[in-house]
Amino acid sequence: MAKKWVYLFEEVDEAEKYVGGDWEAVRGLLGGKGANLAEMVRIGIPVPPGFTITTEACNAYLASGGSFPEGMWDQVIEALHHVEKKTGKVFGDRSNPLLVSCRSGAKFSMPGMMDTVLNIGLNDETAQGMIELTGDSRFVYDAYRRLVQMFGSVVMNLPDEAFEEVISEARRRAGVESDAELSAEDWQAVTLKFKSIFRRMTHRNFPEDPLSQLRMATEAVFKSWNGKRAVDYRNAAGIPHDMGTAVNIVTMVFGNMGDDSATGVAMTRDGSTGEKRIEGDYLTNAQGEDVVAGIRMTKDISELKKEMPELYEEFEQICRRLEEHYRDMQDVEFTIERGKLWMLQTRDGKRTAQAAVRIAVDMTEEGLIDKAEAVLRVSPEQVDFFLHPQFDRQAREEARLAGRLIATGLNVSPGAATGVVAFDADLAEAWSREDGKDVIMVRPETKPDDVHGMLAAKGILTSRGGRTSHAALVARQFGKPAVVGVAALNIDMAKRTMTVGDKVIHEGDWISIDGNAGEVFLGQLPTTVPDIKDPWLIKLLSWADEFRRLGVWANADYPKDAQRAREYGAEGIGLCRSEHMFFEADRLPHVVKMIMTDLPIERREALAAVLPYQREDFAGLFRAMDGLPVIIRLLDPPLHEFLPNRIDLLQELCDLKIRLQHAQELAVIDDLLAQVKRKEAVLNRVESLHEQNPMLGLRGVRLGIHLPEVTLMQVRAIFEAACMVEKEGVSVHPEIMIPLTSHVNELKVQREALEKEAKIVMAEQGVQVKYKFGTMIEIPRAALTADQIAAYAEFFSFGTNDLTQTTFGISRDDAEAGFLIEYMENGILPDNPFATIDRDGVGALMEIAVSKGRGVNPDLECGICGEHGGDPVSIDLCHRLGLTYVSCSPFRVPVARLAAAHAALRDEQATS
Amino acid sequence: MAKKWVYLFEEVDEAEKYVGGDWEAVRGLLGGKGANLAEMVRIGIPVPPGFTITTEACNAYLASGGSFPEGMWDQVIEALHHVEKKTGKVFGDRSNPLLVSCRSGAKFSMPGMMDTVLNIGLNDETAQGMIELTGDSRFVYDAYRRLVQMFGSVVMNLPDEAFEEVISEARRRAGVESDAELSAEDWQAVTLKFKSIFRRMTHRNFPEDPLSQLRMATEAVFKSWNGKRAVDYRNAAGIPHDMGTAVNIVTMVFGNMGDDSATGVAMTRDGSTGEKRIEGDYLTNAQGEDVVAGIRMTKDISELKKEMPELYEEFEQICRRLEEHYRDMQDVEFTIERGKLWMLQTRDGKRTAQAAVRIAVDMTEEGLIDKAEAVLRVSPEQVDFFLHPQFDRQAREEARLAGRLIATGLNVSPGAATGVVAFDADLAEAWSREDGKDVIMVRPETKPDDVHGMLAAKGILTSRGGRTSHAALVARQFGKPAVVGVAALNIDMAKRTMTVGDKVIHEGDWISIDGNAGEVFLGQLPTTVPDIKDPWLIKLLSWADEFRRLGVWANADYPKDAQRAREYGAEGIGLCRSEHMFFEADRLPHVVKMIMTDLPIERREALAAVLPYQREDFAGLFRAMDGLPVIIRLLDPPLHEFLPNRIDLLQELCDLKIRLQHAQELAVIDDLLAQVKRKEAVLNRVESLHEQNPMLGLRGVRLGIHLPEVTLMQVRAIFEAACMVEKEGVSVHPEIMIPLTSHVNELKVQREALEKEAKIVMAEQGVQVKYKFGTMIEIPRAALTADQIAAYAEFFSFGTNDLTQTTFGISRDDAEAGFLIEYMENGILPDNPFATIDRDGVGALMEIAVSKGRGVNPDLECGICGEHGGDPVSIDLCHRLGLTYVSCSPFRVPVARLAAAHAALRDEQATS
Repeated sequence: MAKKWVYLFEEVDEAEKYVGGDWEAVRGLLGGKGANLAEMVRIGIPVPPGFTITTEACNAYLASGGSFPEGMWDQVIEALHHVEKKTGKVFGDRSNPLLVSCRSGAKFSMPGMMDTVLNIGLNDETAQGMIELTGDSRFVYDAYRRLVQMFGSVVMNLPDEAFEEVISEARRRAGVESDAELSAEDWQAVTLKFKSIFRRMTHRNFPEDPLSQLRMATEAVFKSWNGKRAVDYRNAAGIPHDMGTAVNIVTMVFGNMGDDSATGVAMTRDGSTGEKRIEGDYLTNAQGEDVVAGIRMTKDISELKKEMPELYEEFEQICRRLEEHYRDMQDVEFTIERGKLWMLQTRDGKRTAQAAVRIAVDMTEEGLIDKAEAVLRVSPEQVDFFLHPQFDRQAREEARLAGRLIATGLNVSPGAATGVVAFDADLAEAWSREDGKDVIMVRPETKPDDVHGMLAAKGILTSRGGRTSHAALVARQFGKPAVVGVAALNIDMAKRTMTVGDKVIHEGDWISIDGNAGEVFLGQLPTTVPDIKDPWLIKLLSWADEFRRLGVWANADYPKDAQRAREYGAEGIGLCRSEHMFFEADRLPHVVKMIMTDLPIERREALAAVLPYQREDFAGLFRAMDGLPVIIRLLDPPLHEFLPNRIDLLQELCDLKIRLQHAQELAVIDDLLAQVKRKEAVLNRVESLHEQNPMLGLRGVRLGIHLPEVTLMQVRAIFEAACMVEKEGVSVHPEIMIPLTSHVNELKVQREALEKEAKIVMAEQGVQVKYKFGTMIEIPRAALTADQIAAYAEFFSFGTNDLTQTTFGISRDDAEAGFLIEYMENGILPDNPFATIDRDGVGALMEIAVSKGRGVNPDLECGICGEHGGDPVSIDLCHRLGLTYVSCSPFRVPVARLAAAHAALRDEQATS
Repeated sequence: MAKKWVYLFEEVDEAEKYVGGDWEAVRGLLGGKGANLAEMVRIGIPVPPGFTITTEACNAYLASGGSFPEGMWDQVIEALHHVEKKTGKVFGDRSNPLLVSCRSGAKFSMPGMMDTVLNIGLNDETAQGMIELTGDSRFVYDAYRRLVQMFGSVVMNLPDEAFEEVISEARRRAGVESDAELSAEDWQAVTLKFKSIFRRMTHRNFPEDPLSQLRMATEAVFKSWNGKRAVDYRNAAGIPHDMGTAVNIVTMVFGNMGDDSATGVAMTRDGSTGEKRIEGDYLTNAQGEDVVAGIRMTKDISELKKEMPELYEEFEQICRRLEEHYRDMQDVEFTIERGKLWMLQTRDGKRTAQAAVRIAVDMTEEGLIDKAEAVLRVSPEQVDFFLHPQFDRQAREEARLAGRLIATGLNVSPGAATGVVAFDADLAEAWSREDGKDVIMVRPETKPDDVHGMLAAKGILTSRGGRTSHAALVARQFGKPAVVGVAALNIDMAKRTMTVGDKVIHEGDWISIDGNAGEVFLGQLPTTVPDIKDPWLIKLLSWADEFRRLGVWANADYPKDAQRAREYGAEGIGLCRSEHMFFEADRLPHVVKMIMTDLPIERREALAAVLPYQREDFAGLFRAMDGLPVIIRLLDPPLHEFLPNRIDLLQELCDLKIRLQHAQELAVIDDLLAQVKRKEAVLNRVESLHEQNPMLGLRGVRLGIHLPEVTLMQVRAIFEAACMVEKEGVSVHPEIMIPLTSHVNELKVQREALEKEAKIVMAEQGVQVKYKFGTMIEIPRAALTADQIAAYAEFFSFGTNDLTQTTFGISRDDAEAGFLIEYMENGILPDNPFATIDRDGVGALMEIAVSKGRGVNPDLECGICGEHGGDPVSIDLCHRLGLTYVSCSPFRVPVARLAAAHAALRDEQATS
């Protein structure tokens, strides 16, 4: 017996059995559209009879080089007979003809494939029969010409213009403005002309045989899977090429058979806000195309309630039924043919991030889904959405209606941006830096030379390239909103213009791009930052907290950051970079003095001047985090970072010397000489501190050992602050962190010195403060010898930025706008390891460190405080490594809470 | 029963049983001297009767705060009785008194402890008895005054000057020049005066009771273990403090009892050359001290053969017996008392490196030891000795005899150096750089500010510091001969002089230092480089080759280096740095052109110009290594290294601009402007190539991927050369090595490109060359993902320099003269990880790499090509990791061959 290639909609149980009962696999076999049509039939929702030819048939057809697999066509014929029986109509029969549509339907919705041929089954004879049946020859000839036109353009690849020209001509002849005004005779003439165009351009007659029409349309769908645009799209979207598309053959129903007919689209909830109300548009006496095309003004779905109250109620019940069944908001298409409601499609509805959150929460409270599912329904990227500027919803809707949405492309980097168009990097930089303009940099595609312009721009737009193009990678890297691969854009670098259709945009014109939706608008659009305090989001995150096992802490250097982090749900400070405070205007002079002097006494004086500031900084942090742990990392960066830049000094010295040549007055000369002397002194110090590779130089714990006074001052400040706030009644939990440890002895030596100082301070203050002592793990050697190190550390904190730099031997500053991008473009690196932890290298070291460290000290607190702490994929890894917490920027805390919950839930699913 | 604290010499079996039969443990219990005296007794060699108080007794005494452990003193008395019985004399007996010496003797010979008290047992009464017995009152009073003097100075810590003054006074009174001319009465008077000095300075009488003398001397030896100098020495030499010293009580024998008495020292072979002949000095009618003190002119041991032929023959037999027993060259002390030969000490003799090699080889051929033992007898440092300049042996001996050896200290960095004294770093640098002088930098101790002077100096000398002092560490780092911790040096920085005793050396005076022996000479000494082609060394290394399992390859960039490496025994080239050739004068302009241009065509032209040179370089290498593998590493360093320095360019530009201010003539101005333009072009390129951390930047395989033309040119040159020499009949085995791989995809991409080019070239040339393709493992990630990488590599070569940099997160260029030294001084790092592979970190990564790599590809060739490849400790690690070979500089090949044999032999010993 031949394999089953064709499934009637009512045969979904069989399909399920064949693939092993997995709904995802059913979608794989029947395509998303086919599976949902079948599913609707199963749950008793009115769907026009029809059947699906499987994706397996498509793959077999393509693999054979263009032959239907054995038995397929027979099964199609058989299924067709079944539909004939159900509808009481007969395919190709003059008296009561069955018409069908033929639609592609892959597992994932995918542009670029052949989409739809309607009205298959019409020919001169059946058209006649239809006229007799309906008494509406205008309707029939309109349908007939649509078949010829669609068949010609989508099956035979004829240019649509040829057909459109005929219709325009017909309008001119009839002296009317719109197609709606054309008569039955006009459409009959158009149909004839279409057929002769078909003959002229294909050298064959339009197939009158309905089965030939069906066969050719089916083959065209199959072939379109490997069409250029479809392949390009799959490459860009990362969809595998071996999935194939299904073909759905469905009985035609018509919304344009009079005032008791209608057609429309709807979402079962509001896709923008998530509000629980049906949202949609419809037209009476119209075809589906008309709703989408926007030729006629559509009516809001609420009108239907008044126009056809019973049908609306049926529709509303169906929507509710669908939501209950799919346990998600649905996007549906329907047609009412002479008072009978038919559902033509259902699928999970697209929604904004806010809507996603609200729908997930509401559905949980409605009992449709449980909390775990609600948490899993919202992606970390959707939470991230709440943190980026977005276009004002109202303004965006108006712009869309005003036709200012001119093109869409790939949404490769989130956020919205508005600015003037600049077609090259130098101009983008100049306009931004010198004129303070907001710029959108527009290029056919970008290359490394463009990076400075991209960095200066507010957003990036390209006409070519996919998700891993240079433009996409750089934009994501630096958090710039970007839309790429907008094929509709025609950029003319010579003329300094871009055109979309007939719209011409000149350099300097305003445009707006939406990196979430991949949309490009003409003109300026106002942006707003969504409210992170959205009540549904707060509820969802509180549920996430119930599932996650990872703590979520934040990196914060100042009390105000700590405050914000706490508001967003942070359970501790994972990283306070104590030296950030050194750069403040009131402290830097003391710090510079401390560095410039060779005299220990001067150094101590300078440090003594910094101490009160540091103490206040820490006290503020402790107060903000009352009751929660605060990890303070001791001085990390190399000292030269606090001094002027060497190259700048050399230039300034050169300038001074040239000015000296010109100076005439003695006073001026004296002043210049004094300046030269001062600059030379600083330069000398800078030179003596200069290192070939400062990232691998005298910094971190090395500095602490080299200049013990500095770290002692910091420890004193920490403990004076801790004692002070403890006396105020604050519950304080300081954790002292040593950076850049590579050998256990570094930690040992520092721990001894620092604990001694801590003891002295606590004795002075008469307060005992509980504290922890630990280290960053950011050097491979520290990870490899974690067992030795854990003997002197109560906690580890992975500094995955430096750990990635050393594990890869890559200087992030140098590489991230350079060869790293090249590597990602070429596929040498799948991801930017500075954005997502490299599992095989850095992850392996982390695993070694955790297992060796906990082997010695089972209570070892292990966290991560690199930027990776806010990256969902990295958070998943941290969960699997059994870390205690992730620490990220305050703004990423909500994202991390959700991602940590996802990790825990996925883990549970995997092990259950 | 009390523990046994005292062992008669004849009780060595018991001691051996107690410690478990291990000779090293016996030495630990009885000390080196005691154990050897007992051992001589066991094998029937005449040793004056005596016994040893154990190191355990010493430790117990010190632990108790100064009480002999229970039973010890009783055991001493008992042992003394035993000696009395053996000698027929009685301790403290007037008629036939027993005299003994009391000497310290730790496991390792160690300066700084109380050494010897002779003639214990003499008092007014026994002296009288001795006179009656010997009839020689001069001899007896001389012995008596020596006891009082030694007891006073070493037991009671009285200043020796007081005693010496008395003797000078006595000489003056008697009107004689030397002690030898003083009469019995003179010595009797001296003895009386010594006693009154003793009384005056210690407020007690000289102990007349022989047992009190013995008890006090024993306690003094115990206490001296914790004396300041002894503790300092142990700290410097790395000897543990809990070993304790033994005390040896030995019957006195006298070489000064007439012309049938004599005393001397000898080595059983020549300690300088290793020649098989007894070498030594003696004096008739003299005490041991006299031979060492150099007061009287000693006679060569060959004289003894004529003077006392029978005794000489006995002595010769004893020497042979000792060598046979100890299976090593011995350093002995002997005394002839009235025609009876006594051996007072034996120990393994000190020897030069040449002697060590020859003795090991000769003894093997004599059948005393086997080849494995011979190989183990010579240390890699001794082979290294053959590669450093040394003082001419003859000249050094003459200088020693002329009293120009003024002091000794710690031999912390090998080699000999001669130069003028400079007391500060700036002067050392100025004299060396500007005046071309050879300088020895002399400081009380050094600190980081001194490094520039140390680098400019030929050698380094300090009066303070130990083996891990800053001076010692820096000297070893940079291969400068150094002697440190020369306590006898008195450096007066104000006067710019140093004094040793009464000798004053001024700044600018010549001195010579021997870093092997730790010796300091006045004036210049000629240096020579020992002959690496020493026939004994060649033989020893050939034996080493029989044992080692590691291959020894060499790093060589040029044919002449390859030639030398092969002569020294290299079995392949482990690293040819192909870019070194780019720096040659005839190539650099093309390379610079290649870097400066943005035009692909110009780049290809420039590379085409380099190609013939590269081809010739490789051809020469292949010819030199006919039949052996040659690993060529493709371009590694960042491009900016081929261009002028950025800071220099800025300075030059500044100078040019200042000159422009002064220029008057148009022609000059034009010329200067043109220069500015050229410099600015270069500077622009340099700026665009500038990286924050070039070590982690665009270099290695990253460059190969970024500029594929360069590596393709190199591969073409390699294969054109290989085909060419193959046609000449040379057997060529090229191995292409990719540097700095961190991700398998880098290797994959490069391998594809390079193998394609290789194929093309071989097809062009009509020759098939067998080659391998592999990668450096010098980035932690490469080691961690070695299983993935091994799928694309036939060999791994560990670049342990970069691997150490990335594993530690340390930039060697910056740290090695900076905080790394600080770390070693403070004991934070036990060794310089750039000299000796860090076992726990870098070694762990190497182990992961080897095991993961061989897991995928069992035939994977694994080598090391960092400088560590020539370091014995690292070679041992490489052996244990199962590497295929080590590759080091040609000069280190002999050292590596021996070290590899040691590793294999130790491994065998450990597992057998």
